[in-house]
Amino acid sequence: MKNNVPTILVVNDDGIDAPGIKVLIDAMMPLGKVVVVAPDSPQSATGHAITIARPLRLDKVHIYPDVEMYKCSGTPVDCVKLAVNKVFKGKKPDMCVSGINHGLNHSINVIYSGTMSAAMEGAIEGIPSVGFSFADFSYDADFSACVPYVKMVAQQVLEHGLPEGTLLNVNFPKADNIKGLRVCRQAKAKWAEEFDERQDPHGRKYYWLTGKFILNDKGEDTDVWALENKYASVVPVQYDFTAHHAIPVLNNWELDEINSDEN
Amino acid sequence: MKNNVPTILVVNDDGIDAPGIKVLIDAMMPLGKVVVVAPDSPQSATGHAITIARPLRLDKVHIYPDVEMYKCSGTPVDCVKLAVNKVFKGKKPDMCVSGINHGLNHSINVIYSGTMSAAMEGAIEGIPSVGFSFADFSYDADFSACVPYVKMVAQQVLEHGLPEGTLLNVNFPKADNIKGLRVCRQAKAKWAEEFDERQDPHGRKYYWLTGKFILNDKGEDTDVWALENKYASVVPVQYDFTAHHAIPVLNNWELDEINSDEN
Repeated sequence: MKNNVPTILVVNDDGIDAPGIKVLIDAMMPLGKVVVVAPDSPQSATGHAITIARPLRLDKVHIYPDVEMYKCSGTPVDCVKLAVNKVFKGKKPDMCVSGINHGLNHSINVIYSGTMSAAMEGAIEGIPSVGFSFADFSYDADFSACVPYVKMVAQQVLEHGLPEGTLLNVNFPKADNIKGLRVCRQAKAKWAEEFDERQDPHGRKYYWLTGKFILNDKGEDTDVWALENKYASVVPVQYDFTAHHAIPVLNNWELDEINSDEN
Repeated sequence: MKNNVPTILVVNDDGIDAPGIKVLIDAMMPLGKVVVVAPDSPQSATGHAITIARPLRLDKVHIYPDVEMYKCSGTPVDCVKLAVNKVFKGKKPDMCVSGINHGLNHSINVIYSGTMSAAMEGAIEGIPSVGFSFADFSYDADFSACVPYVKMVAQQVLEHGLPEGTLLNVNFPKADNIKGLRVCRQAKAKWAEEFDERQDPHGRKYYWLTGKFILNDKGEDTDVWALENKYASVVPVQYDFTAHHAIPVLNNWELDEINSDEN
């Protein structure tokens, strides 16, 4: 903690008016000075997209009393970049929290998630960062069982910081009594696409992306296992994507220099 | 290689009419049966975004003779999902290649890149996948020095496959004589944002996202080092984002169960 009153950046991907971000703001208020920068519209599944082909808007809004809030026309990652550069003006916040997402971001979903991409961008900026997600997609989701754990994780992050190059992915099961927090690894899984094919009024085909979550991992040290057993999962995530174990394999390939005179 | 004539899915993020994808198509034609599914408009920096809030279009197009091609209204990741599900109808291609991107996707850029996200989606689908990118952003970029190396890498991937859960990120320097290929790790770097602040004709502020690439890594085993020294870089990438080394650190935190009766 850099000073007595830590500054906390709150962001999300469901948009600034989502109930989940209100829960997160309320949970953070006792811990420090809260500043919110969030998308002006839902940005679920935008992954680590940034906006380069059109300009961005950033406008101060007054939604909740005593909270400094800005809405942004871009993606969750844009929000973090604008927050660091234009709101905090380079003086980094002590922590960045993202969510609470309406819907889980466990396992392979970390890749598609705007919530987690915002937290990852916070980590890239050198800010201890956490994404929080809850197993209920609905607008009326009851986040109350998550709140004490959200506070607990945030307090620990403010106290200990996070190992260099890492952030946290925290997911909550839908359960009256969450059994506790489990530090986990990302379960091996994928989505099996099932495109819903329809015809528009002009006879042209179009597709809605849907899918089924396919788990390929029976480990009891995974986030999927934890959630199925009513634990909240805590996965440390990194943004060095190098598959270090594969380097020696590739070094055995025939990847010789090509003599450009021969071509 | 599953059969004598391998099937090769070609995708990109610059759009189906970009010169870079034409170079990649031409390089793949001697290696197998090529099928192209690419965005109908530029999708740079869309990361791992998928399209869930609106439906998708997928239309057959006839741009290059003897090449089966489809344009898609979605992101690069949508293209791969639609290709696997609707074009290949679940019979997976033997390889997925993405690019050649106009502009580098080395180091931290792997996270923002639509090119690399498409390749990553291919890998998640269980297809040996490679993203190719070139250090020249311009429309008129001369890709000719890259071509023999693109073929070499693709041939090796068809021959050896790739270690489970990995894909390749291949970047080419702008050099008349590329010195060869180097297997590397992702360099530690970040973008320092520099938002270009302007005023619209109505007096309201808006921002263009720009930035400066900040390298925090003097290692000679990185992709940045390779490219600066006129080598093409080959980084094995994984989509298990777990920071396994951080799990024991977190297991020392105070993350106890909360007795819900007390709250």
